[in-house]
Amino acid sequence: MLKAKTKNISIVLYKPKYAGNIGSVARAAKNMGISNIIVVGTTGFDREEMQQRSTHLAADVLDKIQYCERLDETLGGFNYIVGTTARLGKARGPFISPRAAACDIADISQKNKIALLFGPEDTGLANEELRLCQAVVTIPTSREFTSLNLSHAVMILCYEIFTASSGAANKEEITPKLARSQELEGMYGQIKTLLADIEFLNPENPDYWMMHLRRFFARAGILSREVMIVRGICRQLEWYAHHKKT
Amino acid sequence: MLKAKTKNISIVLYKPKYAGNIGSVARAAKNMGISNIIVVGTTGFDREEMQQRSTHLAADVLDKIQYCERLDETLGGFNYIVGTTARLGKARGPFISPRAAACDIADISQKNKIALLFGPEDTGLANEELRLCQAVVTIPTSREFTSLNLSHAVMILCYEIFTASSGAANKEEITPKLARSQELEGMYGQIKTLLADIEFLNPENPDYWMMHLRRFFARAGILSREVMIVRGICRQLEWYAHHKKT
Repeated sequence: MLKAKTKNISIVLYKPKYAGNIGSVARAAKNMGISNIIVVGTTGFDREEMQQRSTHLAADVLDKIQYCERLDETLGGFNYIVGTTARLGKARGPFISPRAAACDIADISQKNKIALLFGPEDTGLANEELRLCQAVVTIPTSREFTSLNLSHAVMILCYEIFTASSGAANKEEITPKLARSQELEGMYGQIKTLLADIEFLNPENPDYWMMHLRRFFARAGILSREVMIVRGICRQLEWYAHHKKT
Repeated sequence: MLKAKTKNISIVLYKPKYAGNIGSVARAAKNMGISNIIVVGTTGFDREEMQQRSTHLAADVLDKIQYCERLDETLGGFNYIVGTTARLGKARGPFISPRAAACDIADISQKNKIALLFGPEDTGLANEELRLCQAVVTIPTSREFTSLNLSHAVMILCYEIFTASSGAANKEEITPKLARSQELEGMYGQIKTLLADIEFLNPENPDYWMMHLRRFFARAGILSREVMIVRGICRQLEWYAHHKKT
């Protein structure tokens, strides 16, 4: 997957009501590497209230906010507009998930200007605004309470775009490497010797307890550096056991 | 993937500072079907400030919040504790992504009580608290600004758990069905007849323009009901064209 070109991505807030929410949106956007915000149809928000939520670390995003009057004019220069909604009327879709949208957005952002469009806190986007969109995202929620805070909705979509680009969601890439079989077998051999030395293992059937230990270590998914720690402990125990005997 | 048993999942906020953040956490949690919140180590939060952010629709989650003094006692009854951190010190990991954690959590929640542990807004969890965790999640962010708002961090983890359970992220499940080939060919045949009738197509090579149209429709991914709309338009155009001629 290509990394999204975040300079080509803008968050467009249509008629937001609360300065605090705009500040929270700025923080969320910057956390996920997006710094273009356009506010359409409302203006005159208290700067201090915004910055209290954005924190001073995202104050640069607040400074860059563009304020526009009309939505159609604002969107005119964009190549791909992604609307967001919690209301699933038939005429409003088809809807895609934030994850599916993020994959498309990462690709499309390479050569196109993308607007992520969010509606007012109370009503969301109307059909009239959704009509301007090439894709409509709906964030999956519990049926009991579907209305997300504006900045939470922005965060989820931006997080999915960031994750799609970075491949960070990929379990394999983030999980550290497990120990190789030869490391494991060396460790098991050493444990077995130790447990035999201290007469824990039944000499008739030494592998009975060893199998339980193997299963435990396998389930835990032991790492190389953890094998080394276990072997260090075994070495020390062996030394101690022999000194006790002599 | 099994659906997470959300009644077995609790959000544990360790020493949160701001009532507003607790309210936002309650809203985010309820959006994603989680209703257990435990606040540890701080108390006396302004109810009105909390509810302003939770909205009255998540007021029931606020009512149920448990306040505890000690973290170790709070966590004592849980089977699986998931810590969260933005600081990636070597002694603090191994770290997993929210998505990988969510898959594990969905499975483990079937029979175990799970705590999702979040630290104070300013410092996050210290090594001492992370030591109590079976898994440590780090939310991928831009390197420029890694510090997430508390409720944003809660939202991302809860959203991933909800999504892992519901399979809603699966593009196939949410994207409506594309039209079948026979529907497409019927539509193309009708368009071709119409375009020949109105003498748009060159009778020597009628398929030249048709190929461009086919490519366009294919790229758009046309749905069954859209095929019907296109055919309706064609029918009407044919009727109109013939009436004009006669």
